[in-house]
Amino acid sequence: MKIYQYTITLSERRRGFHLITKEVVNSLIWLNEIKTGLCQIFIQHTSASLCINENADPTVRVDFETYFNKAVPENDPDYVHDTEGSDDMPAHLKAALLGSSVLIPIVNGRFALGMWQGIYLCEHRNHGGRRDLVITAWGE
Amino acid sequence: MKIYQYTITLSERRRGFHLITKEVVNSLIWLNEIKTGLCQIFIQHTSASLCINENADPTVRVDFETYFNKAVPENDPDYVHDTEGSDDMPAHLKAALLGSSVLIPIVNGRFALGMWQGIYLCEHRNHGGRRDLVITAWGE
Amino acid sequence: MKIYQYTITLSERRRGFHLITKEVVNSLIWLNEIKTGLCQIFIQHTSASLCINENADPTVRVDFETYFNKAVPENDPDYVHDTEGSDDMPAHLKAALLGSSVLIPIVNGRFALGMWQGIYLCEHRNHGGRRDLVITAWGE
Repeated sequence: MKIYQYTITLSERRRGFHLITKEVVNSLIWLNEIKTGLCQIFIQHTSASLCINENADPTVRVDFETYFNKAVPENDPDYVHDTEGSDDMPAHLKAALLGSSVLIPIVNGRFALGMWQGIYLCEHRNHGGRRDLVITAWGE
Repeated sequence: MKIYQYTITLSERRRGFHLITKEVVNSLIWLNEIKTGLCQIFIQHTSASLCINENADPTVRVDFETYFNKAVPENDPDYVHDTEGSDDMPAHLKAALLGSSVLIPIVNGRFALGMWQGIYLCEHRNHGGRRDLVITAWGE
Repeated sequence: MKIYQYTITLSERRRGFHLITKEVVNSLIWLNEIKTGLCQIFIQHTSASLCINENADPTVRVDFETYFNKAVPENDPDYVHDTEGSDDMPAHLKAALLGSSVLIPIVNGRFALGMWQGIYLCEHRNHGGRRDLVITAWGE
């Protein structure tokens, strides 16, 4: 078993859901080295998250933003943590709901994503800045 | 460290939450080969998901379906992606909330699930069809 | 590649969100043995969960409890599974939304958490009792 690990930094995205599959795949240093294994992508932030979802129709990602804004409202008077802007506390909650990492099987040397699956960067802040990912792959 | 990987296909289930622990355990090819390790189960779809929850009372799974239908409503007029049926966009959102994989420790050669834990297939479509899982286990 | 695995038991916490990073880090037996790898922390329960979120301001964790109590209400008359108390079915749902494990990269022999990331025990029951975690780390 071999293991590869490195970090990449994503440029700032606007608030919303963004397909980053190509950017991640282009960064992979373990291609040709791991045929059977797993790859974790971990985001080192608490107001952005990662998930796997539909990779084709951009309106799906628009609806994700609409849905999560309704499900986790801004300006709830019950929030105590509100000094960093109205988008801050909702960003933490959305990040917890969606998760800080994805874990993808490597089959025959490639991500074994289903036909319709892609990797989303979920940017929950209005001005989230650049986002750091730690990528770790292991297998043989 | 050894690694084992294979795929299984689950037969079509009706929309709802289904306990698949036995079906997964019966498929395991690494029993007797891995004593200490981890096993990931990954679903290659964006409108069905996997999670770990209560394995005993079937009414828990009924309440899961009830809850998620309220939390992620169909026919929200704000959805833009609506050409594949009223259950389609909610299915993507539910899948993102619950996640595309579970990762279970292997202790003494067996899944180290708690007494009340089981693996759920969460089928979010009315007619989702068969569902493909990639199962990867590693350890020693 | 080496693998280390053990269990720890957390003392009972009151219902809410609790930072357990220090307690987990103090338990780690693989320090000095793994430089590059991953560590999974898995909770063997269905009414408590684990997630990664903001590690500094305690009001964030207060708002988490407030939010999840609104998002997953108690005493919904539609719940069928209600014999174990009004906090029981919501606890299962919250646990599914947040997840039963976290997976953290190990970089240079330490958890590669972002500056603001910590590990939360999410206790969803009024009297959840002690909680068992299985910790597995692997790498080289």
